[in-house]
Amino acid sequence: MPAEIGTTLSSTGKTSPYPQYVEARLGFRNHWYPTLFSDELGEGEFKAFPILGDRLLLARVDGRVHAVRDRCLHHGVAFSRKIECYKKGTVSCWYHGFTFNLQTGVLCDIIANPRSNMIGRLRIDTFPVIESKGLIFVFMGDAEPPSLADDVPPTFLDEDIYVRGRRTEVQANWRIGCENGFDSTHIFIHKDSVLVKGNDLILPLGLVPTGKDAFEIVDEASGPKGVYDKLFEHCEPVFEGKIEGETVAHGNLGTTPVAYNISIWLPGVLRVTPWPGPTMTQYEWYVPIDENRHYYTQTIGKKIEQESDKSDFGRDFDNKWNEMALQGFNNDDIWAREAQQEYYRYDEAWTEEHLYEADRNISVWRQLAAKRNRGIQKREHIMKIGRPVE
Amino acid sequence: MPAEIGTTLSSTGKTSPYPQYVEARLGFRNHWYPTLFSDELGEGEFKAFPILGDRLLLARVDGRVHAVRDRCLHHGVAFSRKIECYKKGTVSCWYHGFTFNLQTGVLCDIIANPRSNMIGRLRIDTFPVIESKGLIFVFMGDAEPPSLADDVPPTFLDEDIYVRGRRTEVQANWRIGCENGFDSTHIFIHKDSVLVKGNDLILPLGLVPTGKDAFEIVDEASGPKGVYDKLFEHCEPVFEGKIEGETVAHGNLGTTPVAYNISIWLPGVLRVTPWPGPTMTQYEWYVPIDENRHYYTQTIGKKIEQESDKSDFGRDFDNKWNEMALQGFNNDDIWAREAQQEYYRYDEAWTEEHLYEADRNISVWRQLAAKRNRGIQKREHIMKIGRPVE
Amino acid sequence: MPAEIGTTLSSTGKTSPYPQYVEARLGFRNHWYPTLFSDELGEGEFKAFPILGDRLLLARVDGRVHAVRDRCLHHGVAFSRKIECYKKGTVSCWYHGFTFNLQTGVLCDIIANPRSNMIGRLRIDTFPVIESKGLIFVFMGDAEPPSLADDVPPTFLDEDIYVRGRRTEVQANWRIGCENGFDSTHIFIHKDSVLVKGNDLILPLGLVPTGKDAFEIVDEASGPKGVYDKLFEHCEPVFEGKIEGETVAHGNLGTTPVAYNISIWLPGVLRVTPWPGPTMTQYEWYVPIDENRHYYTQTIGKKIEQESDKSDFGRDFDNKWNEMALQGFNNDDIWAREAQQEYYRYDEAWTEEHLYEADRNISVWRQLAAKRNRGIQKREHIMKIGRPVE
Repeated sequence: MPAEIGTTLSSTGKTSPYPQYVEARLGFRNHWYPTLFSDELGEGEFKAFPILGDRLLLARVDGRVHAVRDRCLHHGVAFSRKIECYKKGTVSCWYHGFTFNLQTGVLCDIIANPRSNMIGRLRIDTFPVIESKGLIFVFMGDAEPPSLADDVPPTFLDEDIYVRGRRTEVQANWRIGCENGFDSTHIFIHKDSVLVKGNDLILPLGLVPTGKDAFEIVDEASGPKGVYDKLFEHCEPVFEGKIEGETVAHGNLGTTPVAYNISIWLPGVLRVTPWPGPTMTQYEWYVPIDENRHYYTQTIGKKIEQESDKSDFGRDFDNKWNEMALQGFNNDDIWAREAQQEYYRYDEAWTEEHLYEADRNISVWRQLAAKRNRGIQKREHIMKIGRPVE
Repeated sequence: MPAEIGTTLSSTGKTSPYPQYVEARLGFRNHWYPTLFSDELGEGEFKAFPILGDRLLLARVDGRVHAVRDRCLHHGVAFSRKIECYKKGTVSCWYHGFTFNLQTGVLCDIIANPRSNMIGRLRIDTFPVIESKGLIFVFMGDAEPPSLADDVPPTFLDEDIYVRGRRTEVQANWRIGCENGFDSTHIFIHKDSVLVKGNDLILPLGLVPTGKDAFEIVDEASGPKGVYDKLFEHCEPVFEGKIEGETVAHGNLGTTPVAYNISIWLPGVLRVTPWPGPTMTQYEWYVPIDENRHYYTQTIGKKIEQESDKSDFGRDFDNKWNEMALQGFNNDDIWAREAQQEYYRYDEAWTEEHLYEADRNISVWRQLAAKRNRGIQKREHIMKIGRPVE
Repeated sequence: MPAEIGTTLSSTGKTSPYPQYVEARLGFRNHWYPTLFSDELGEGEFKAFPILGDRLLLARVDGRVHAVRDRCLHHGVAFSRKIECYKKGTVSCWYHGFTFNLQTGVLCDIIANPRSNMIGRLRIDTFPVIESKGLIFVFMGDAEPPSLADDVPPTFLDEDIYVRGRRTEVQANWRIGCENGFDSTHIFIHKDSVLVKGNDLILPLGLVPTGKDAFEIVDEASGPKGVYDKLFEHCEPVFEGKIEGETVAHGNLGTTPVAYNISIWLPGVLRVTPWPGPTMTQYEWYVPIDENRHYYTQTIGKKIEQESDKSDFGRDFDNKWNEMALQGFNNDDIWAREAQQEYYRYDEAWTEEHLYEADRNISVWRQLAAKRNRGIQKREHIMKIGRPVE
């Protein structure tokens, strides 16, 4: 449960053009989110995962992953404080032996009171799970889940894409994560990155919008909702940084063009292609933990043609990209988000900030997110710990 | 002063059938509470004791214990930050020498301003004190105190009962303490306790209510108010834990019956008899420190027939019961309460929880407590630091 | 940004006779405050300074100190998290290269987007700076600044006064600092100070108001606003501390009279003369950091007749007064303020406290401060991060 779930009343009286986005401190409900990596949850294992101000309990049974709320419906305690599993496919609360079917959430027995009328009549929340590309995706909500493909960036699920990744806890709201990633001119913070110089990448200091509009808003009835920012179709790169006419800094004029196609998708996932090198794509999620933290779940996908390509890329990932790109390069982003959080933990930040021309893509994202999210997570969703079995 | 004294507005819109109980985050006023053990306060010593969101200063003078609020009425500083006592029976504030009579609370002198008109006209709050059974009981309130016997469980004050005990700070609200103790089926958490196996106790995994009602509500005009839960008169023990028909766990089928008479009393004290062995009774208090903490004051009473029985029991207590029962066994309870607090620090917990049949005794206790408490402690009581001498 | 900027609603229903003073949790706006000592900011250096719930960035350029808000107007991040300065007289935000003129605050370039319309049209707040007596004074507000002489105690700016000092962070609200300093009878806490005994100072245990009124309220149209408390004209010293007629403590009956002229000035600065010895004056500021902390900026001024007097006093300061007076003696005050803060962090403290006759000067100060401050700092002032260039 987050330290402070609540409202911060505006002291300045301004209102936002995308109030649903400002309210979404705990994230959007009824979307698919990546949780653990598949290899973090072995057969028979249970693990807790904090998400959207709430807690999940993940368990793998006969290979299949189940996700339930990590709270007994009796007194709200977390099962994960002391896992007790007496029968495959169930979890028993350590407090009174309330036992739940992991697949249905139904209270199937109470060890300490086996004739209770509640047995079979109440259930805890269960969440749909799909394992794909080495990640355990969970549908965080109570609506009918759409296809996973509706909540991940295009190409991520392509059969010939092989994916590796890592997860880091970041001390900033998830929206700061999204905007830092999609922000086209934040490349300024990466100007001295070893990744850029070492791989001869083209990385300007910034981008000048030319006035031409090259966003592609994807907002069909089905499929993912997102925004493509084809940077180089509506921007000119800045390689010479100037202050009052004087040149003060230089971008990296390498020979390898990268990251010219950047897009962000509901519920908060970025695709950058090609990145971190010309034959890869980075897909990264900003998964809300609570109001002040998110999981930064970074993955790199690479098209493979034969089985041996997997181990080749696996080796490259372990030896190079994990450390140089996902850590070395992106650690600057983590640091920047944590610095930004100090101001944005007050709601006024969303109306007192001053976006500039190059932030047009961020406004477009906010509007789309405010309009197309499937629900806003609130404290009332977290406090509700049991439901009747219908 | 507690970190957060205030209200947590309900996000779910439900209201409680016992609102006074839900409001009593800081405990009930105008009741007797145990504070220090007598041997913790030597002659001439002063000690602070946090309680009900407030602070007491306890002092022993010529053998007698005095209790005043640990705040000077001038600027609210705690005397206990630097005790200055220049004359027996008084305490002087380290800041300006405001000097108070420990018995009456009257401002009897101000060293830095000896001709002040306030001298003799204002007082700090004093609290009635009774030392009994090795504990210093303080009446926390401003009403006329009833007899101590009205606020302790029956038999505790009996002349032939000898008492030993210990006190531990627990990171959970005091009500969680009460309910964990009185909860008949929480015995499930003790199933592997060394105390149980080592002493051949009968301890089932749970209890099945038979539908017969065997609570005895004690609610006379005088005397303590409480609820007896004679477990084995309305419950059948569960020794075989089953999930979907399959036996998964066993209770402890020892030969020594214990704990068949459990009762809880205002303002928050449990009696379990016999416990932890057939010739003893455990009396334990859950004393509110603030909204998120309580003192768990555990005592074991034993009937003695001659003086030498005291030292015999004292030896047993020191060598066995203190470590094996009050710590070994009850540490599981402490851990459970702290796990429960995470959810119950939000008021919604009290309406969103799902009590089951075996919790009937808890509902009865809540109703009695809501009805028969002598006042609810609030922040306004804590901020008030001085009164006119009448 | 402070942890909690907000309101604490009164639980007791009382209102204060000086509500502006009670509201001024974050201090008074539109006043001059000392920040760093001059020698803490070398040529070309940048340093952050937290003040009034806000953040300053101080920079010295060609000898002159500039002060701007330490927040980029784009996303509110602190420049000081990673100082980037590409051109003398400017600071560039590490995030997108927003570059500001340190003197005017104008956004003079954006490295990542050099053709933005925002360039030249928006500015961050700048604050007037005056360096004097080895301190960097900053005018914290947006009004037309008065003369520095209007916000410092008389004599502090005198040409023949040489000043040395130190700064300490204190965990108490700034008003507690002011009142502890001006409080005439708080001398009780210093009764055992080595400074007093070692220098044969006259320091009574307290003071008895004689009823004669000897406050001099200075409240002219121009010049500083403050209150002189000429202690010994309306008080008699107490050298014999008594409780119920019995002598229990003695003041220090030295031969060196000190501190007979004490005054406090807006926005929160005390002058004690002579102190800590017969030829010196102590000037000390209580500079709000946030609601719960202040900087205690202590200085000692000494009249000098020739240049060599400076190094003589400098040596005395380093060898004796810094350690014996500003630390040894005043550390008792720091400790007392921190003890007082526990109660005064609730607004009710200001109405539930009980002032006594010797606190008359404190009431006079509060009334003057409530009436003559130039504005109350609020959260809305802190959240506002950019303004149009007029």
